[in-house]
Amino acid sequence: VDIEDREQLIALMEPMHAADIADLLEQVNTFDRSRLIRLYGREFDGEILSELEESLREDVISVLHPEVLAEAVRELDSDDVVDIVEDLDAEQQTAILDVLEDADRVAVQQALSYPEFSAGRLMQRELVMSPEHWSVGEAIDHLRAMPEADLPEQFYHITLVDPRLHPVGNVTLGKLMRSRRDVPLSSIKEDLFRVIPVDQAESDVAYAFNQYHLISAPVVDADGRLVGVITIDDAMAVLDEEHEEDILRLAGVGEESSLADRVVDTTKRRFPWLAVNLVTSILASMVIAQFDVAIAQIVALAVLMPIVASMGGNAGTQSLTVAVRALATKDLTGSNVWRVIRREVLVGLINGCIFAVLMGIVGLVWFGSPALGYVIAAAMVINLVVAGLAGTGIPIVLDRLGVDPALASGAFVTTVTDVVGFFAFLGLAVLVLL
Amino acid sequence: VDIEDREQLIALMEPMHAADIADLLEQVNTFDRSRLIRLYGREFDGEILSELEESLREDVISVLHPEVLAEAVRELDSDDVVDIVEDLDAEQQTAILDVLEDADRVAVQQALSYPEFSAGRLMQRELVMSPEHWSVGEAIDHLRAMPEADLPEQFYHITLVDPRLHPVGNVTLGKLMRSRRDVPLSSIKEDLFRVIPVDQAESDVAYAFNQYHLISAPVVDADGRLVGVITIDDAMAVLDEEHEEDILRLAGVGEESSLADRVVDTTKRRFPWLAVNLVTSILASMVIAQFDVAIAQIVALAVLMPIVASMGGNAGTQSLTVAVRALATKDLTGSNVWRVIRREVLVGLINGCIFAVLMGIVGLVWFGSPALGYVIAAAMVINLVVAGLAGTGIPIVLDRLGVDPALASGAFVTTVTDVVGFFAFLGLAVLVLL
Repeated sequence: VDIEDREQLIALMEPMHAADIADLLEQVNTFDRSRLIRLYGREFDGEILSELEESLREDVISVLHPEVLAEAVRELDSDDVVDIVEDLDAEQQTAILDVLEDADRVAVQQALSYPEFSAGRLMQRELVMSPEHWSVGEAIDHLRAMPEADLPEQFYHITLVDPRLHPVGNVTLGKLMRSRRDVPLSSIKEDLFRVIPVDQAESDVAYAFNQYHLISAPVVDADGRLVGVITIDDAMAVLDEEHEEDILRLAGVGEESSLADRVVDTTKRRFPWLAVNLVTSILASMVIAQFDVAIAQIVALAVLMPIVASMGGNAGTQSLTVAVRALATKDLTGSNVWRVIRREVLVGLINGCIFAVLMGIVGLVWFGSPALGYVIAAAMVINLVVAGLAGTGIPIVLDRLGVDPALASGAFVTTVTDVVGFFAFLGLAVLVLL
Repeated sequence: VDIEDREQLIALMEPMHAADIADLLEQVNTFDRSRLIRLYGREFDGEILSELEESLREDVISVLHPEVLAEAVRELDSDDVVDIVEDLDAEQQTAILDVLEDADRVAVQQALSYPEFSAGRLMQRELVMSPEHWSVGEAIDHLRAMPEADLPEQFYHITLVDPRLHPVGNVTLGKLMRSRRDVPLSSIKEDLFRVIPVDQAESDVAYAFNQYHLISAPVVDADGRLVGVITIDDAMAVLDEEHEEDILRLAGVGEESSLADRVVDTTKRRFPWLAVNLVTSILASMVIAQFDVAIAQIVALAVLMPIVASMGGNAGTQSLTVAVRALATKDLTGSNVWRVIRREVLVGLINGCIFAVLMGIVGLVWFGSPALGYVIAAAMVINLVVAGLAGTGIPIVLDRLGVDPALASGAFVTTVTDVVGFFAFLGLAVLVLL
């Protein structure tokens, strides 16, 4: 498509969903992006801003004409505006807040007063509630009388509240519609009802939605009063982000990495993890340096030593990943922690013995020395047992200390398996072969 | 809690959600598990079966009394029964199918005829539809007249269909309730409407729900006729599983690993990946073996060589993880593949140069040899550039070949960075130092 042809471009993008347009903007280069946005002109959809990656949002907002921006933001639900505003710099934040209507601005500012990544930032303030003593008919009449603007874009429940505004139950719209007008709402409440404190971490919110198959849940302040509602689509987005974060953290990539980042940003983001790796691998080298006399005499040691370290690193990463996931999904708790550690050590022992035999044979055949075979076999067993222990123990300890195990475990675990791997192999070699 | 006290146990578990009871069953050991189930006795909730991990379900089902099992399964929605039945062995499958009522059994068997991991397995057949020409009043009357048993447990939309049963739009219950009885349904359809083919992969279904913030979507057969509906809670569960699979595959752990697995199963599952690693690390050792003469002369080479390989492996894993995620989220496409590869290579080059200087200094200070410093610096740059190239290129190629890049990329990438790392460092050392 010729990017110059405005008519054609708009005709092409018209049927596209905001999320797809956002993806398109993320995939083209910076130059095409600003031209696209300028061509797109006055009818920029606020939803596109919502769907854009944070790293690009500032760029796009700075390209947009202030009036276009105002129009785009005004039509969004309060939670979406909060999501956009929270990551902007102060100047852009003020620019957006200024164009909102008074009531919306207060709502957004209130939401921003809750801690980042809390339920308060995630919830929307538009919701449908009714006194608990109302009947079906009263609720339906109330719903019909409410102006469209006060209603959430989508809603699935009516939340019943007591006179102090404490939520006491949810009635689904399906139930409401199928009941006679004189039925009291309190008699058709859903069995499942969970209330979310406004300061709960968003990861715990996502966990609750996934665990209990919630569709929407009321959010309450410290006094237990209803202040908002979180819906499953927001919880799903958080779950997606949390996973993304875990997977990127495990690999030692900054958790907000994206393909749209510039080279400089990406380089900066990855640098610290490589620096940590440099330090830990120098540590491992210092272990090797202790055995330089032995290596000079038997070069086969230098040839074989990376195998032991690499197998340990691999086994450690396996245990580590399972442990990090189990901690994230709350499957690994105080009640089974010792059983899990014992299992990982046992798995390391069994696989260690199998690979010990295999590597023993390789050592024997390749270098013709049974003693070398024994040494590498013993080192393999030791390192795989240690890998199981460190791979499980380190994330558990970090979790207890309040550090995200996905973030730091990898470096620790491979340091342990490298150091133990080189030390066990070279140390045994000195004892047995020299 | 004393596990012998039946009354107390039931009183304790009564208020617990099925998902929490399932988690409890997963966390206790095998012996306690069967005692818990036997004590729990006649009132075993079918939902608990749904929430259990697949690996435990067979065990639990075999412990349950057939009548209890029948009772438990009968109350579930068809998609939940399918989810339970699809992983059982033939005998248990027949046992469950036999206790279902005829209509349910046909529904489950029909669902099982769709391929595994397809929309057909995920959807529920209970749904609410109406002819497109109906008015709001007609739809409400129809809803009220439907027997409870034919309705889904939860529903959010009414799907409008044409006379050939092709879905043409969704009306939300909120809209329905707020509209006058004489309003035609077709005038209050939602703007956003996506139809899911029954053979679509469940990962694509989850992607669509997440991308377009769908709440429920109609599923159609090859002729475009409405056959079921998928709701967001099922899509969220799939998204969660897909992520879990990705993260476990990246670490070389079988994707259905769980903490509840026995030691033997876990050992078997991890063995193949360790075996692959053994082969690739032997490959790297064979590269080292080519330089045994050089190493015997300059032992510092053996001390420093793991650093180059380890830095390359780390940088490669960073690029790899970003690429695998971007492929999974469809952010990496034909339109930006070259830009992404170029960026990763550039990032590798820049970080390579920085670490080259650092390592050059370390080599110089530690071993007092400027030449050794140059060699390790040059090898570092080469390996980090190759890491960026391999870390991005390998998953892209695997993806094009139809192989899940999360599954196999890791082994390939570290093989490349190990081999290149050792070869570049030792090869340059031979050229420069000997």
